Amino acid sequence: MTTDPPVLGLVAGDGLYPEYIVRGARRRTPELRIVAVGFKGETNPAVIPLCDVYKEFSVGQLSKPFSFLKKNGVQNVIMAGGINPKNILSLRPDLRALSVLMRMPEKNADSLLGAVITEAEKEGFTILPAFTYMEEHMPQPGHIAGPRPTPEQWEDAVFGMQMAKEITRLHIGQSVIVHHGTVVAVEAIEGTNNCIRRGGELGNGKPATLAKVARLGHDMRFDIPTIGPVTIQTCAECGIRQIALEAGKTILLERDRVEQLCKKHKISLHALQLPEQDGPSPSDRPA
Amino acid sequence: MTTDPPVLGLVAGDGLYPEYIVRGARRRTPELRIVAVGFKGETNPAVIPLCDVYKEFSVGQLSKPFSFLKKNGVQNVIMAGGINPKNILSLRPDLRALSVLMRMPEKNADSLLGAVITEAEKEGFTILPAFTYMEEHMPQPGHIAGPRPTPEQWEDAVFGMQMAKEITRLHIGQSVIVHHGTVVAVEAIEGTNNCIRRGGELGNGKPATLAKVARLGHDMRFDIPTIGPVTIQTCAECGIRQIALEAGKTILLERDRVEQLCKKHKISLHALQLPEQDGPSPSDRPA
Repeated sequence: MTTDPPVLGLVAGDGLYPEYIVRGARRRTPELRIVAVGFKGETNPAVIPLCDVYKEFSVGQLSKPFSFLKKNGVQNVIMAGGINPKNILSLRPDLRALSVLMRMPEKNADSLLGAVITEAEKEGFTILPAFTYMEEHMPQPGHIAGPRPTPEQWEDAVFGMQMAKEITRLHIGQSVIVHHGTVVAVEAIEGTNNCIRRGGELGNGKPATLAKVARLGHDMRFDIPTIGPVTIQTCAECGIRQIALEAGKTILLERDRVEQLCKKHKISLHALQLPEQDGPSPSDRPA
Repeated sequence: MTTDPPVLGLVAGDGLYPEYIVRGARRRTPELRIVAVGFKGETNPAVIPLCDVYKEFSVGQLSKPFSFLKKNGVQNVIMAGGINPKNILSLRPDLRALSVLMRMPEKNADSLLGAVITEAEKEGFTILPAFTYMEEHMPQPGHIAGPRPTPEQWEDAVFGMQMAKEITRLHIGQSVIVHHGTVVAVEAIEGTNNCIRRGGELGNGKPATLAKVARLGHDMRFDIPTIGPVTIQTCAECGIRQIALEAGKTILLERDRVEQLCKKHKISLHALQLPEQDGPSPSDRPA
């Protein structure tokens, strides 16, 4: 009796995250066959030669990628890396995606991804947690790089994490920029780097804090918030001097390079533990 | 026995709002003596000749404006018009303002204004509602100008109002831009027009909705959200085709000009009633 080698399906969005998944998977299970779905203009070309099979689709297609994965014997799927929200807004859905969209009352990034996962499960796929093979890249609570935060910075970090968490409760975004106890910028769909640029400008070049969290009640099959050297570089250019990440729920890519950049630009980077459910809901908050 | 003419103190921020207060007050009480505090680079110069006494101070001064108002016999004060949040961030507080700031855990625009009001009341001033003399400029529920919203637009308007209200609950801002059920931009301290510009761009030029509300549990002594021709013009340039205001709690300046602009640019402008705690009921839909 022969056993076929296990097969992993990968839905590969932008950035380095899909590449990390593939490398982590190869390290742990060398015989793994990786079948990847990519998106034109989104998927990092570096991931392509690392997969056994790779095919590109348009954002908004559901039927064709499902068929492609099935044809290649995929049962387990990881979804990794984001899709530029601008492309989500201008997507051209196929019939199946259209029928999903029609049933959705709110069309934010979270609900879109959730709907895609539901459809994939109806097709018989199992969606694995997005941190599979990524555990070593998810910082635990504590200081990561750069100078230790001052007490004032620490206050802004805790405040920023709480505010960012409330923003995820509204399904809007996952980052805020804080400056001396004031939220100066909220990320909606413009992306973290654009939010950093705005928050830095609005802070009049004075040091500010980026707080980035996972969604409240985050479904770990979803794309996980990620930062890497580009985030640090953008922060350095825009007067952000502190980055607070949610411990155990955000991914830090290229840690060595990140540590160098934080040291060079005197950016304090640390991970905070945030209790998941016991924060007051917006309706509990005194006006 | 002689009766001195009544005196009104006016703390005049930016825009047309202080001018409207003065004109409304003069119409209702011609003998009123108006003593105004202004801010360099903020207060519209048009208001100056309309006041009996006017003096400019720096943002962040408290002691001197208080003395000035007292010396001029002021008991009742209206605070009208905003201060550019960038100037709030870079304010140079006098000793009294500094002691207020030190006691504040969160320094957002709401809490700053609240603290200023508390200090003013300690000094014996009475802060009148910011809508005093402005009632005629606060739209009641219904259609105001431009085309009637489509059912899809109406859904975005209701959703946007709810989301903007939640954002005020977090003391962040009062406006959001919505595009087909997605919040594409949240206003923090960049100001409504900058938020409109970002939301318009992110919507890829497709028609979007601006929803603007008063704070949840809004203290009516605070500056009231205001729109006027500049807002409409900015919306027209940025692909916003619908503006939803909170009925009875937002101020519409230069209504004639606003109506012309909405007609010209096919922008649907209407006011929605939003119950403080629940979403708007379907019956609020403008007929």
